Amino acid sequence: MRQQYFMPTRVIMGEDCVKSNPEIFREIGNKVLIVTGASSAKKNGSLDDVLNVLSSNGQTWTIFDRVTPNPSIACVREGAEFAKKEGVDSVIAIGGGSPMDAAKAINLLACQDISDDNLFSGQYGPEIMPMIFIPTTAGTGSEVTPYSILTNDRARTKTSLGSPILFPKYAFLDARYMLDMPMNITINTAIDALSHSIEGMITRRANPVTNSIAAESIRKISSCFDAMKSGKLSLDQRFELLYGSTLGGMVIANTGTTAVHSMGYSLTYFHNVDHGRANGLLLPAFMSYINKHKPELISTILSIMGFDTVQQFRDTLNDLLGVRESISREQAEKYAEIASRSKNVSNSIVVPSTDDLIGILYEALVL
Amino acid sequence: MRQQYFMPTRVIMGEDCVKSNPEIFREIGNKVLIVTGASSAKKNGSLDDVLNVLSSNGQTWTIFDRVTPNPSIACVREGAEFAKKEGVDSVIAIGGGSPMDAAKAINLLACQDISDDNLFSGQYGPEIMPMIFIPTTAGTGSEVTPYSILTNDRARTKTSLGSPILFPKYAFLDARYMLDMPMNITINTAIDALSHSIEGMITRRANPVTNSIAAESIRKISSCFDAMKSGKLSLDQRFELLYGSTLGGMVIANTGTTAVHSMGYSLTYFHNVDHGRANGLLLPAFMSYINKHKPELISTILSIMGFDTVQQFRDTLNDLLGVRESISREQAEKYAEIASRSKNVSNSIVVPSTDDLIGILYEALVL
Repeated sequence: MRQQYFMPTRVIMGEDCVKSNPEIFREIGNKVLIVTGASSAKKNGSLDDVLNVLSSNGQTWTIFDRVTPNPSIACVREGAEFAKKEGVDSVIAIGGGSPMDAAKAINLLACQDISDDNLFSGQYGPEIMPMIFIPTTAGTGSEVTPYSILTNDRARTKTSLGSPILFPKYAFLDARYMLDMPMNITINTAIDALSHSIEGMITRRANPVTNSIAAESIRKISSCFDAMKSGKLSLDQRFELLYGSTLGGMVIANTGTTAVHSMGYSLTYFHNVDHGRANGLLLPAFMSYINKHKPELISTILSIMGFDTVQQFRDTLNDLLGVRESISREQAEKYAEIASRSKNVSNSIVVPSTDDLIGILYEALVL
Repeated sequence: MRQQYFMPTRVIMGEDCVKSNPEIFREIGNKVLIVTGASSAKKNGSLDDVLNVLSSNGQTWTIFDRVTPNPSIACVREGAEFAKKEGVDSVIAIGGGSPMDAAKAINLLACQDISDDNLFSGQYGPEIMPMIFIPTTAGTGSEVTPYSILTNDRARTKTSLGSPILFPKYAFLDARYMLDMPMNITINTAIDALSHSIEGMITRRANPVTNSIAAESIRKISSCFDAMKSGKLSLDQRFELLYGSTLGGMVIANTGTTAVHSMGYSLTYFHNVDHGRANGLLLPAFMSYINKHKPELISTILSIMGFDTVQQFRDTLNDLLGVRESISREQAEKYAEIASRSKNVSNSIVVPSTDDLIGILYEALVL
């Protein structure tokens, strides 16, 4: 297993960083496809900031705002057709994980003819338009990863499409866009980011560089646990969560994720549980499983957050997540079976069997 | 001041990583220029590993091993003429900071016609050959930076040449090459790396991403203080120093350095003091100066190393460095004046005046 670190996206950060760097926007193209969700980018000021910059630069744009949560293949194919029809030469994604992940797939499918059979192969040509990504949630880290996660009805789960050509050229981080984010979304996305960094440390591809970045990400996000419980976050804390999330993206860009994500996708696909929340429901049970084989590693991760035991971490997550969803034994068995086919499972530092996955799902979700 | 993070080099790491990744070497070119120093790469096994990989790949190469410590403009011009004459299409640098920094400048000058007047301008065309860098010391971080530091006789100091085109395409990190490194070189280079991460945190361009990476770098290097004092380092500790050094490179690739480096260059230029050692002699006095203006920042840096005061840090460095060099008052004034013209000085989070620099040099070096 090659140990490597690679993350070529240029990250620009800080308050008003979009407005202060018009020359970076100017260089990406003449006609920009803006990919965003239905409403949040319009409300939080991010879309206005981008349009003002493009307008004063004399650039033109067209907006594709029909990205749904957990975007489907049909959704990104629609976006790609739109991009081709409009003749765009560059892409700006504004939003959470869904618009950002969709933007990568839209870009790829607008530039290359790829059948559904080959969509998740990672075997693509080099053609891609330059991309600027502006996250408006602090969770996915998509702004610094080469991944696009799409709902895959054929496999009845979410599946990752990945290639180095999908790294955005630029990422802009401004937590001002998150000031009015509802607390449940704040928590779910923060737990998604935390899960990335923790999972990154328990993959086979974890290495000293990714572990260093993961540790700092975990430190930043866990420093906001109390504030998230209180329901009130300052702008500084919003920035801590955002930087924690981007650092988490830098980790999984190199390590990938684990069985937590594989199992979580079933909770999202079959029960419509938010992605970050699904990870949070499963993470402690998975850490308990790994703890049986690698107690020092789990102890290291827990100590970064100030915990001695997985149970303490689970208690904190329970405080943040509220009443946990439950599933039946039969559902647990089915989801374990689906997850066992994903590559994330074999990426875990200890590879769980299907029975192990059933046990983890029981512990986490079967009352 | 734009806050940004960018480091596009792909870092491959771990024991025997050169031998295990021949396909990466194969892709860089058909005729490789190997840039190295006079002897260490031959002794520590790194050159043999590379030649074996190139040979089994069927690639050809030519070796430029006339890089001197603190390479001059004449030295890199000689290397560039050699590269052009030999018709190489790619570059592999093996060694410490001098061969690595020289390799970047040789590559640039082999691909582009640049006069001495424009050499440090940073205004170059895009032409450059792909580069693989293999550090055999754990100090410079050059394998992940866009800088080449050359001895500049016209300015009577060392001057940095920098451009994003100078990032190596790949860096290979294997601490096995450092197992037989003499302890004084180990210490000097480790202090250079530590200085990069500490200085990175006290620049105007420091940001939350670079600070996260710097903190982990400082943690790794300072965890080896006792082992360096004892004169005995395990392979694991050698790797900690190496990863600490690469992380330090990732920091200064974005932040640059401070007045410590500017002043240190005079100690190297006029007194032939090793570069890392020069930084170590000056760093505590510079931190004391910053501490008057930014006590929380210095306290944060010290606490990562387990220190409460700058004096404790200075004591530890003194243990490692042994008897300190001294300079005269007149020399301090001259070096402060030379340093005051460098851009590193204005890059410090608190910009010292020439009088401040004189005070720092007095405190550090005038008995």
